[in-house]
Amino acid sequence: MSSQINVLGIAGSLRKGSYNRALMHAAFAVKPPEMIVSEFDLVHLPFYNGDVEAQGDPEPVLLFKEAIRRADALLIVTPEYHRSIPGVLKNALDWGGRDPKGKGVVTSPLSGKPVGLLSAGGAAGAILSQTHLRQILVETRSNVMPHPQVFVAMARQKFDADFQLTDDPTRQQLTDFMAAFAVWAHKPK
Amino acid sequence: MSSQINVLGIAGSLRKGSYNRALMHAAFAVKPPEMIVSEFDLVHLPFYNGDVEAQGDPEPVLLFKEAIRRADALLIVTPEYHRSIPGVLKNALDWGGRDPKGKGVVTSPLSGKPVGLLSAGGAAGAILSQTHLRQILVETRSNVMPHPQVFVAMARQKFDADFQLTDDPTRQQLTDFMAAFAVWAHKPK
Repeated sequence: MSSQINVLGIAGSLRKGSYNRALMHAAFAVKPPEMIVSEFDLVHLPFYNGDVEAQGDPEPVLLFKEAIRRADALLIVTPEYHRSIPGVLKNALDWGGRDPKGKGVVTSPLSGKPVGLLSAGGAAGAILSQTHLRQILVETRSNVMPHPQVFVAMARQKFDADFQLTDDPTRQQLTDFMAAFAVWAHKPK
Repeated sequence: MSSQINVLGIAGSLRKGSYNRALMHAAFAVKPPEMIVSEFDLVHLPFYNGDVEAQGDPEPVLLFKEAIRRADALLIVTPEYHRSIPGVLKNALDWGGRDPKGKGVVTSPLSGKPVGLLSAGGAAGAILSQTHLRQILVETRSNVMPHPQVFVAMARQKFDADFQLTDDPTRQQLTDFMAAFAVWAHKPK
């Protein structure tokens, strides 16, 4: 890999003390050197509303879509709320999977975009949420990396009070994941 | 059924010209006489945020939860966005399935609540969305009516320009659904 890879990170939880946001940062900390990372905070987005969209995407939505288009790949990190992804995250995908000026999902920012998924949770590491997220991203025509899969179980025990990762096996998983993700981001779309 | 049944309707789309909102109104139009219906518009809710919740549920969330608790049953009507329910609706369930002052999901407004589901969409009538909604509502411990199932396919052809239902077979389906729902709402929880 010689060329730079721009990765946009999205955390599915708005909470400051989110283990999923901490997991995103822990993944960023073990990224390959050619990867340049940034974040988009979903707190800025409004709820999807077809009437609003018909008037033109609001400014925060335009910024979100532009950030996705500029990125070579997305890293989405999600908790599990009631056996699925948070409404906050689904709402972002509802916007990101649409191009009202083009051909809907076909020309949307998420279409063809390489995506990596991570999740942190309790006993099952938010496995149902991440699996469901993968199903949704089929419909947005995103290229989700199939392997390696990382589900961080018992997240509470793997980060310290400052939300720093303290678990070495998890750090190794993240290192392998990010190395594979750098390769995946370069795949032809 | 002699006693009154209070049903709270929730449409999963914010759009004014939503076929799902129209479907909810078409269902209300063929309700049994003992059923009293009202609506909660999800546009009033903020995004779920654990930090905000920790400060106490915001006023719109308190109103939403109180409306659910007061209702004998909920009628949730959902479109399908990217193979699942809208983020707007999932966000409402993220709030409604929690009781921060009590025992979480066990004492949440959605726990034990009788629920009926309807959906309208394209070729498949939002069947994946409604199916996924049913999975989520297992986790909130809601009592979702299993049968009859109504998926209104090709909704665009079944409502007129004023969003009035024009399709008699669908009206019959809704009539049967609402009669069964009145019985379901009375079941011991």
